[in-house]
Order: sequence, then C-alpha cells, then structure tokens
Amino acid sequence: MSEENEKLEKMIEPRLLKGFRDYGPTEQLARQQMFSKIQSVFERFGFLPLSTPVLEYREILMGKYGEDEKLVYSFKDNGDRDVAMRYDLTVPLARYVAQNQGQLSFPFKRYQIAPVWRADNPQKGRQREFYQCDVDAVGTDSIVADAEVIACLCQALEALGVINYKVRLNDRSILQGFSINTIRAIDKIDKIGLDGIIEEMKANGVEDEEIARAKELVGGSAKPAESTSNIVKMLEQYGLQGVVEFDPSIARGLDYYTGTVFEIFLKDKPEFGSICSGGRYDGLVDKFSKQSLPAVGGSIGVDRLIDALTDMGAMTEAQPIKALILNQNEALVENYVKVATELRSQGINVELYYSSAKLDKQFKYAESKKIPFAIIIGETEVKDGTVQLKNLATREQEELSQKDLVTRLL
Amino acid sequence: MSEENEKLEKMIEPRLLKGFRDYGPTEQLARQQMFSKIQSVFERFGFLPLSTPVLEYREILMGKYGEDEKLVYSFKDNGDRDVAMRYDLTVPLARYVAQNQGQLSFPFKRYQIAPVWRADNPQKGRQREFYQCDVDAVGTDSIVADAEVIACLCQALEALGVINYKVRLNDRSILQGFSINTIRAIDKIDKIGLDGIIEEMKANGVEDEEIARAKELVGGSAKPAESTSNIVKMLEQYGLQGVVEFDPSIARGLDYYTGTVFEIFLKDKPEFGSICSGGRYDGLVDKFSKQSLPAVGGSIGVDRLIDALTDMGAMTEAQPIKALILNQNEALVENYVKVATELRSQGINVELYYSSAKLDKQFKYAESKKIPFAIIIGETEVKDGTVQLKNLATREQEELSQKDLVTRLL
Repeated sequence: MSEENEKLEKMIEPRLLKGFRDYGPTEQLARQQMFSKIQSVFERFGFLPLSTPVLEYREILMGKYGEDEKLVYSFKDNGDRDVAMRYDLTVPLARYVAQNQGQLSFPFKRYQIAPVWRADNPQKGRQREFYQCDVDAVGTDSIVADAEVIACLCQALEALGVINYKVRLNDRSILQGFSINTIRAIDKIDKIGLDGIIEEMKANGVEDEEIARAKELVGGSAKPAESTSNIVKMLEQYGLQGVVEFDPSIARGLDYYTGTVFEIFLKDKPEFGSICSGGRYDGLVDKFSKQSLPAVGGSIGVDRLIDALTDMGAMTEAQPIKALILNQNEALVENYVKVATELRSQGINVELYYSSAKLDKQFKYAESKKIPFAIIIGETEVKDGTVQLKNLATREQEELSQKDLVTRLL
Repeated sequence: MSEENEKLEKMIEPRLLKGFRDYGPTEQLARQQMFSKIQSVFERFGFLPLSTPVLEYREILMGKYGEDEKLVYSFKDNGDRDVAMRYDLTVPLARYVAQNQGQLSFPFKRYQIAPVWRADNPQKGRQREFYQCDVDAVGTDSIVADAEVIACLCQALEALGVINYKVRLNDRSILQGFSINTIRAIDKIDKIGLDGIIEEMKANGVEDEEIARAKELVGGSAKPAESTSNIVKMLEQYGLQGVVEFDPSIARGLDYYTGTVFEIFLKDKPEFGSICSGGRYDGLVDKFSKQSLPAVGGSIGVDRLIDALTDMGAMTEAQPIKALILNQNEALVENYVKVATELRSQGINVELYYSSAKLDKQFKYAESKKIPFAIIIGETEVKDGTVQLKNLATREQEELSQKDLVTRLL
C-alpha cells in the first residue's frame, strides 16, 4: 500500500453527530452578543449568575420531567456511577438551592445561560444540544416575582430587537382535576389543533367526561385565575400593556409546574413555537429538601429565537476587527509587530498577516473576515514613521503618521 | 408511615459528582468577568469565536491524546452510537477545520472559551469539569503565529492582573529521537524532579543510553532550536522582554505537538503548575483531511488560574446591583414597580424586594448581595414624588426627587 493510501485508510471522516452543530465565527459572534445583552437585562432585574455542572447524578434528574425523561442523556461513568447530562437548568437549580440553603439568602434570584441536552428527534429549530437562558426566583410565593420574571424576559427580548411578541398566560389551578395526559394534550393545541388533542386524549384513555370538560375549557368557557388577572394588571406597571393575555390552553408539558404558566410567541413567526416559557414550580425544591421553597422562573430558547430572527433577516452582524496589517516583506515583521502592539495597547482590535503572501490573497482574507481597513507599511513608511491606511470598501488610501493612525481607528 | 416520613423516604439527597462543582453568584460573577476580559484580548489579536458541541463521535477524539485517552468520558447514546465528551478544544477545532476547509479562509484564527471533561483523579486545582480558553491559528507555518499566540496569552494574563509570570519555551525538535515515554517523563520534571523522571523512564523500559541523553539534555547541555531563539527575539517587539526563556524540559505530555511547545507559570505560585500552555501541532488536522494544515495554539487553564489568584487574594469582586427597593407596604407595589422600571430603563441594575417582609430581613438580604443602596418609598414619598435613598455602608439617608435618584445612581 502506498504511503498516501495508508494515510487515507487511517483518516477519520470529520463529521458531527445528528442534532449537534458547530457555530462558526460569524454566527458565534452574533450569539455571544445576544447572550451578553440577555445577561445585562437579567442583572438589571437583580438576578445573578449561577453555574452548575453538565453532569449530575442520574437520580437528581429522574422523576422530574414526566414522559420526557426518556430523552435524558445518561450513562455509567468510569467509576460505575449513573450520571446524566443536564436536561434543563431548573432541576440543577433546585438541587443547588436544597444543597446550599443554609448559606443562601432568599429569595435566591439567579440566571444561568448554558447548553442543555435532549435526545429528541432533531427538527427545524430543535437540536439535541441547545442553549437556555433562565431566570428564577426561589423561596418566594409572591406573584410580584411571577410578574418580574415575565417582565424581565420581555425586556430581554426587546433588548434583542424583538418587539412584536405576545405573552400567553395561564395558571395550572384552572386545569385542576385534569390528568397529566389531558394537560399534555392541551399543551399541544397550537401544534395539532382541537381535533388533534381530542384524538390524543382518547388514545391515552382519558374518559369522555374529562375530554368534554377540556374541550369546553379551551373552547372559551374558561375564566382566568385571580393570580393571572393580577399578573396581567401588574405587568402594565412594567410598561407591558396589551402584550399579555390569558390563554386557558397554555399548560406546559413538564410535570413540575404548579401555578402560573406562560409562553411567549413571535407574532410574525408563530410557526417557530414559543421562544420563551416558564412558570411557578412550588414543589420542585422539596424533592431534595425537607424545607419547602416555592419558586418561579422562565427561560429564553435562544437557539430557536435566533433561527426565527435569521428567518426574518433580523440578526445583526457583529465584526470586531478594525484593521489588517499587510505583510509585504518578512524583513519588516518587527515593524508590523510594533505598530500592532501600539494599536492593541490602545484597545484597537488589529490583526497582522503572518506571512508575506501575495497581496491579493491578503485582501481576500480581510474581506472574508469583513475587516474594514488595511494598514500598509513598506520601507519608506518605516523610515518616515508613517503608514498607508486603505479603506477596503471605498479603496481610498491615505498616508498617516502612526500617531494619527491610532486616533483614526479609535 | 406518616406523610412526612414518606416524603423523607422519597427525597433525593442533593449532591454533586466528585470532581464537579457549582459556582455560586459571587464566584460566577468573577469568572464571567474574567472570561469577558480574556475574550476582549483574544479579539484584539484578531481571533474570532467558534463553538463546537460537547459531544462528538468517539472516534474523532481517539488516537490523539496518547495514554491520557483513557480519561475521555465516552458512552453509547440512545441510538447506539459511540460518543464522547469534549476532552480539549484543539481536537474539535481540527475536526471543524477539516470538515469546513472549503468554506474557510486561512489562516483560520479562532478562540473558544468552554468547559472540557477529563475523568482524572480530582485534586487541588484540578476538577473533572474545567474551562479552557484557547486561541489557535490553523493553516500557517509562520513562527510569527507562534509568537502571536504566546503574546496574546500573556496579554490576557496581564488583563487579568497577572504580572509576575514566566514563559518557558522549547521546541519538540530538540527532543527528536526520544521515545514518547521519555518525552512524557521529561514533561514531569517539575513535579517529580530529575531522579523521579529517571525512575519513571527505567520503569517504562527506556534504554540506559536514552536515559543518559535525556539527563544530559535537561541537565543543561541543550541549546535552543533556532525557532525558539527567533520567537524569544520576536516577543521583545511585543513588549515581552525578559519574560520568556528557553527551557529544554518543557515537553508537553500530549501526543500531537510537533514544534514549538511552551508553558506559563506564576512566579509567585509555581506550585499551581502551568496556568497556560500550548504549542505547534502540524499533523493534527491531517488526521481528518487529505490536505495538510499546520497549526499553533495555546490555552489558559482559567480554573487553575482562579484558584491561584484566590490563594494570592488577587481575585476582584464584582457586584452589579446598585440598589434594592424596599417593600414596606404591598399596597404600594405598583409604585415600587414604576420606580424600578424607570431606573432600569436608564440602564441601572435595581432589585425590588417581592414581599413586605420585616425591614431587618430586607436589609440583611441587601447585605448578603452586597447591594450598596436601599430605596425607601412610603405613602408620603408616593404623594410627593420622592424617595429616601439610604447608603447601606454609611447608614446615611437622603431625600431625593425620583429624577435626581436616576442621576444619583447612574
């Protein structure tokens, strides 16, 4: 076998697992900018960050998600422990609070922006690895907290440029008496319609009388719970008039919700489903603790939101690099480095082309990274302490002293 | 069984896996601030972000790390695929570049700040889940790239307030002819000393003649490779005089290094080991691609660095929340919300206490979150459109109009 064939034989095909993806520089810059804006809004409402591990003991996650727990990634680690990958950010929060309650002040208000994993069937806008941006307040039963969580998420959406959205609000109490099968069916009404949910309830053996009650409820007979009306009213003080409405079909599929439940939709892209959701889960911390700690929270499904914004052409492109120092003569590299170091010391993002490749190649490189300026330094410029600054969009070029270069690029 | 006993029976003990930890708000704020500073410096040098998944096909990671590959977390997923958790950020980068090379411009310069997992024996400064902050340039064999990677990492350290550090630099070429067992032994000289590495080589069956050569090399006979001398010289242009030195014992344990190798140590805390490391790995992308793409990169072990800085009392505390609006009367909540909303719209981070608990409790809460000001609004203040602003450190209180409050807290 020739050496090349042998290499090909050994070569591993570079590929990704289904439901997993890379984010290249352009996408990742935009994502990081979004995370940073979300983080600012969360802190503006007094939430502080918490970081929990990706892996937990499997038993921590089990018994919290209902039928969806089959989607949890779990395995035995090298020490034969049953471990699982984070499925959401809420259960690890409950575990953290229960474990550290002696040291914490309540209400414990935290945010977490981190990926979670679900072995779901990948589809448009739903990957097996995706980010959640959560805010939660643990240790309070005040509906002021419910309202603040919703207001905070709306504010975050607005910071991301989302203005045309609708909050659909409900309370699990009006679903009291319904089985979890019925609640899960109601939760799907947007996707499968009234006929679809009736069919699903029948298939799951829900009794006719309960089906009739559910039909009546989502058909319009339902009145909002008192808490729902109070939250709608309170949200007006946050400047959220006409944005929030009672919707008896908002049920949320997860087992752990106990009171307020809500979802936020893009009015222009309802087909992307809810881009935020959450609610009150007063019993979750109890699963790890003798002390009862009521809690409320919500989450931005930022990957789905990005897909929708991309679809709307509403994603802004960030490009942080100001200039590329061209490399025309490797003997001058020390001079290039000096200029780069000076600019960087002033906080200017500047790149130095490493080798003296053809200029055409270097310009193409700058273009590919959307760098707006090229800095040209030849022997004459070194002698005179000047540079040529070329605007790569207009092709205009000007000679500047190195000092003026800093001012020009700041 | 009583109801309470039944609950206790069902309760899951909240606990963490060995080698994994939570970062509560104070620590996580400091960490996020560090990541953000590192990111700024990386972008200042023209590196852009890339995000790769936590899970990869197992075969992507195998055969790259040498004996350490037993530390990779791997398992079968629900679809019976052999998958593995990210062990470092370099191999996924090589996979990404090989997979997308037709769409990328070279040199491809990226940074990634993300956790990795190693089923190692946990010890001080070494968890099973920890963050790496990597910069790499792929598709260049220029030693300017080697120098920039080192300069960029040094700049990041300085941005974090680390000033007393030493870069120890070598080139794998001066270790040519040595077996990987010898290279790995040499790499451990700081931990186990000259006698220790000789013992390890003997135990691994390294021949006497090779042991003698290794002993001579690390004993002081070695001369730097030409590339090493050139990098030291070039780094002076980056303002890094006297910071970099040739050290023939710097070998790096990983299989994939081919040229430049370096480690950075804290002069005041050498016992924490290297807090940055990296080197040239010209053959790694080839494992996934017919096209050869030389590369160089480096990484900040930020968790270990934080441990060292904490030990030195050099970690700064960040506290983003400016004021807590006290809740003395739930009938006034709408007014509290209005003031909070106005302050937040001006970009001021302000928190509202959800329920009208005892004032003492609310002050303690503010103290626990290190919030510097309390805002007090009673019926009189509502009527007059004023607030009482209390400095929680000095206990001084002043009456302000709501407009002046904004200016005061901005």
